[in-house]
Amino acid sequence: MKKPSSRDLAQNLTTLLGQSRVLSDELARQRYSHDDAEWAPYELPLAVVLARDIDDVVATVRFAVRAGVRVVPRGAGSGLSGGANSIANCIVLSMEMMTNVTEVNVEERYAVVEAGVINDDLRKYVAQSGLWYPPDPASSAISTIGGNAATNAGGICCVKYGVTRDYVIGMTVVLADGSIARLGRHTAKGSTGYDLTGLMVGSEGTLGIIVDVTVKLLPLSGREERAVVGYFPSLTAAGDAVAAVTRSGIVPSALELVDGVCLRAVDDWQGLGLPREANTLLLAQVDEVGDRGRELAASIASHFRESGGMKVDVAESNAEVHTLFLARRLAYPALERLGPVLTEDICVPRSAVPEMLARIQIAAAENSVVIANIAHAGDGNLHPLIVAPDGDYGAKARAKLAFDQIVADCLSLGGTVTGEHGVGLLKLPGCAAELGPIVIGMHRAIKDSLDPLGVLNPGKAFPLLPEGKA
Amino acid sequence: MKKPSSRDLAQNLTTLLGQSRVLSDELARQRYSHDDAEWAPYELPLAVVLARDIDDVVATVRFAVRAGVRVVPRGAGSGLSGGANSIANCIVLSMEMMTNVTEVNVEERYAVVEAGVINDDLRKYVAQSGLWYPPDPASSAISTIGGNAATNAGGICCVKYGVTRDYVIGMTVVLADGSIARLGRHTAKGSTGYDLTGLMVGSEGTLGIIVDVTVKLLPLSGREERAVVGYFPSLTAAGDAVAAVTRSGIVPSALELVDGVCLRAVDDWQGLGLPREANTLLLAQVDEVGDRGRELAASIASHFRESGGMKVDVAESNAEVHTLFLARRLAYPALERLGPVLTEDICVPRSAVPEMLARIQIAAAENSVVIANIAHAGDGNLHPLIVAPDGDYGAKARAKLAFDQIVADCLSLGGTVTGEHGVGLLKLPGCAAELGPIVIGMHRAIKDSLDPLGVLNPGKAFPLLPEGKA
Repeated sequence: MKKPSSRDLAQNLTTLLGQSRVLSDELARQRYSHDDAEWAPYELPLAVVLARDIDDVVATVRFAVRAGVRVVPRGAGSGLSGGANSIANCIVLSMEMMTNVTEVNVEERYAVVEAGVINDDLRKYVAQSGLWYPPDPASSAISTIGGNAATNAGGICCVKYGVTRDYVIGMTVVLADGSIARLGRHTAKGSTGYDLTGLMVGSEGTLGIIVDVTVKLLPLSGREERAVVGYFPSLTAAGDAVAAVTRSGIVPSALELVDGVCLRAVDDWQGLGLPREANTLLLAQVDEVGDRGRELAASIASHFRESGGMKVDVAESNAEVHTLFLARRLAYPALERLGPVLTEDICVPRSAVPEMLARIQIAAAENSVVIANIAHAGDGNLHPLIVAPDGDYGAKARAKLAFDQIVADCLSLGGTVTGEHGVGLLKLPGCAAELGPIVIGMHRAIKDSLDPLGVLNPGKAFPLLPEGKA
Repeated sequence: MKKPSSRDLAQNLTTLLGQSRVLSDELARQRYSHDDAEWAPYELPLAVVLARDIDDVVATVRFAVRAGVRVVPRGAGSGLSGGANSIANCIVLSMEMMTNVTEVNVEERYAVVEAGVINDDLRKYVAQSGLWYPPDPASSAISTIGGNAATNAGGICCVKYGVTRDYVIGMTVVLADGSIARLGRHTAKGSTGYDLTGLMVGSEGTLGIIVDVTVKLLPLSGREERAVVGYFPSLTAAGDAVAAVTRSGIVPSALELVDGVCLRAVDDWQGLGLPREANTLLLAQVDEVGDRGRELAASIASHFRESGGMKVDVAESNAEVHTLFLARRLAYPALERLGPVLTEDICVPRSAVPEMLARIQIAAAENSVVIANIAHAGDGNLHPLIVAPDGDYGAKARAKLAFDQIVADCLSLGGTVTGEHGVGLLKLPGCAAELGPIVIGMHRAIKDSLDPLGVLNPGKAFPLLPEGKA
């Protein structure tokens, strides 16, 4: 089949969907060509569709099948692995205009949410009904629930409350032939058939396009937040404190690490009055009420002190704690201001956190690159952020070497190459190394069974060729 | 291909695996021909293999492929939907001899467990290390972890702690071609590739044979059990109490319903001194420590009283509470002593529990059958137990009508046809009605992609034909 021109294709799409749904100018195609993963490859899409409802999604997929082009679904484009990056010969299908919360069921504690609803918006909305949606990626102010589900996003409170997958109990999905599948349930439990809802979560739009999601909610009440703050003289001392907390059996509701590079970058940008001299900050939270909460916080504080923590302080939620958590959330965009950031997302066994942090420093030294660190330390989910000054091609090449070295170190410590960002494009080789040909073959078989023509975001989420040569 | 005789096939299997692994006498084939689901169809297997290690599983699957026969994997045979029932032309592959707990990692809080380990044995074993495996099906004394995973078993504490799927983070699976897939991770988080671990959980051996499972564990400490007991004049009054607790936002660690028929059946059998005059017992538990736990228990007690509960009592774990929970666990086998039991496993929205309990009574009256009730009421997961005296074919036919009526009522209330027992054979028509042809088609596509020859437990978990005509 002749490859369609962008112009012809956009014209046909516009005829089908109406002018308000289709973007085809160069600037728009540029803007929608990639997510927030620096250095992952991308191409210009032939056109961009802004879906307003499920009919638009169905029509776009059917059109793509007829036209012989591919569809790359996209939420807010805040992903960090290239999962939403445009590929050759594709339509980017943005879900950002589908922002209705269709239902909040207070008694059953669930909400039905269109894919384009921003995470924080959902959290605020259900809070009005006394309910809580726990998953809180650092991008919660900008990322969408659909994107969160497609990438199985994590977040700060996951160490106690789990990730997006643990809250998605149903969804509506448009399949590769344009048919509509309603998956999952609205009940507290359910075990009818395969867990196709769970299969879709984290599949990065390769098996279906998520149109709406049914999420389980928790009661907002019954929690009392207490923070424990401590500053450490080195990354590995902070790592030791994390390992000590884990060993004690305490399950905090947050256990975050932010290094000095990040603190200073955030402070330079936002002037929050952060402790600029600090080497590493650990930020823990517990949410048990009353005496039990006080005990747990005190116990974490003593683990911090015993591991070399300084200025260790327990505080009920106050302005200082709020500022420190804000700094944690702003670390990534603050770093990006310094130059393109290559973001790692490894997850190692919790007890291996000190060793992995040491190896990250070795990778930085050996490759002469700056590596800043933020981490969901309580999960063992580390985000070394490799920074290379804009235009410094040598640094960029060395950053890539450091990235590969960190992935290899993570696997040798029994870790996984992505804790919460997904495979996208950046982690295809790591995915192949971690899963091996038999499990990659299962992915391929399932992908082919649900999308035999390869219409939906092909080449993402897992390597199409067994050895990561895709 | 000529259908092999049981004798020839067993001889060849014995040559391959050794005498200790193969059972082929009539009695053994009979014993392994079905699980605990009364009335689900079954056939005699050609032979039974008792696997001792993964090599036995691989060899059996490869043998079956070559011989053109099917493999039905089996744990303890305590399933209640016919998922382990033998089918024509099959080998039953029992995992009951694979009983090693391969690893307990205290720091990372996981265990690696062979498929044949009994649920209670795992719980006791990890308790020695201060760890807790929450999923606790009523069958925990006899059912295996492999079977629990294959059916996504639920249990009593699921209302707060989730089901088997929420605890399985990895597994080793033998696929339909005999290859070995290692799925999942040992880290706290992980998002590499599709959630194939989750796909295998609840797939009833149709996509692969689970050889071992990696389960997430919780700290055993930090919980303080308090029970709230109340007796209700009717099923629907108890249902109202459940709905009131749910509306209040309290999440109990158990909220169980046992009706008078069950209490009397257990008491007749075990002589536990249960209150034989009671109509319906509600049994709640909370596990928050200290004041918080006391408050929640008191609050549940007042909801019980307001809904007509009598002799409502709050107790820290004591002998009486222990006896009542034991009665709950023994209800099913006690009922079985009265005659074949057709077990329902519907799950409705929690607020629909009173209405569904009323409809169950209508179904009993309209079809002139005895229906006893136990329920994970806090989840909306009801187990009407339809009893028909042995040999009474009229009662059996009416029981089947009541069963279908209850399934239809459940679906009309927005429920799901199986909360925790799985589809097996009993729920194939209900599964078709609930999921519809598009979602059943997805099941079929995935099954065909991973098991193109239909070797692994074909005809279970979902109807092979779209309309439930399989």
